[in-house]
Amino acid sequence: MELACLDLEGVLVPEIWIAVAEATGIDELRLTTRDVADYDELMTHRLRVLDEHDLKLQQIQEVIAGLEVLPGARDFIDWLRERYQVIILSDTFYEFADPFMRQLGRPTLFCHRLVVSDDGRITGYRLRMPDQKRHAIEAFQSLNFACIASGDSYNDTSMLGQAEAGILFSAPQRVIAEFPQFESTTNYDELRAAFTRASAALAARRA
Amino acid sequence: MELACLDLEGVLVPEIWIAVAEATGIDELRLTTRDVADYDELMTHRLRVLDEHDLKLQQIQEVIAGLEVLPGARDFIDWLRERYQVIILSDTFYEFADPFMRQLGRPTLFCHRLVVSDDGRITGYRLRMPDQKRHAIEAFQSLNFACIASGDSYNDTSMLGQAEAGILFSAPQRVIAEFPQFESTTNYDELRAAFTRASAALAARRA
Repeated sequence: MELACLDLEGVLVPEIWIAVAEATGIDELRLTTRDVADYDELMTHRLRVLDEHDLKLQQIQEVIAGLEVLPGARDFIDWLRERYQVIILSDTFYEFADPFMRQLGRPTLFCHRLVVSDDGRITGYRLRMPDQKRHAIEAFQSLNFACIASGDSYNDTSMLGQAEAGILFSAPQRVIAEFPQFESTTNYDELRAAFTRASAALAARRA
Repeated sequence: MELACLDLEGVLVPEIWIAVAEATGIDELRLTTRDVADYDELMTHRLRVLDEHDLKLQQIQEVIAGLEVLPGARDFIDWLRERYQVIILSDTFYEFADPFMRQLGRPTLFCHRLVVSDDGRITGYRLRMPDQKRHAIEAFQSLNFACIASGDSYNDTSMLGQAEAGILFSAPQRVIAEFPQFESTTNYDELRAAFTRASAALAARRA
């Protein structure tokens, strides 16, 4: 019995912080883990910038609600959900992901939470656990599921490595080069084909 | 961060074997765990009856596709999925549940699999693991989720007991009497209210 585990940003929806930066015109929100290696430092910077611009959670959610999931994402996840039980494993926050999840037909999402004050300001964040994607795969395997996982970046590679099959989707060239053990796909048709091949290989291994 | 874990049959959809017995007019399919305590004996009986009536998987699925989820079930689960990440924990089989899951908007389902021959006959079944509902709750808790669970019968009580909050829904009187520690609800409005109260209690406990 197989689970499909998908990263969210870059696989089904645009990078949320980049999209918010573009929609609000606030360039300081464009920084990513590529620019600031320490995640806590990066998030502290982002929340300070939001505060400086007096942007509350509701306004960010309205910005995100105006964004669209990636072209073809809804068709892809509908296809996937007809064939597998699907869980989205993401390091984003429920409060940001919600408008996208509505567009995607509300697949199950495991991610993190923001800390929001009574007046709607984002005052902090709470990671549910470190390296949660890999831990989730391990937990599903302990329930006798085989996992086929797909993601696009460094923070997905421990999940892809733990899964019975790991597939890169639309990954940067340096991630593809550094992790040649994972099949690399660049569009949803290729990703569908890679899932189908991975399933067949798992079935052959069981037989 | 909270997960909602729901039993399927009796909570969102009718009892599948009873419904198949009624739709096909085969009374021998009415036997349940109340009549035959040993689950393997019961399933062996059911599969033999299907075989005697030359009923293949596709015909059973067509019968199930003609059935409806419980009145109000789709509204209830839509309400739930707007507020929680939802996982259905059921001891049914993917092949039977599929037509219902389509009606419910394809929530994530953890259950078991049938063994089907090349000519479409159901020749056996494969439990993913024993007591899978309780084990799933433990796995989610290991990922730092708090779980609010709801079910209607004996095979749900270990799940309800393991969860941070357990709620009986439309349970037989003797289950309600035997497990007074679980709040008992009889319709979706009560179940919504019980979920909301359980969430508030969990939030108060965290604060």
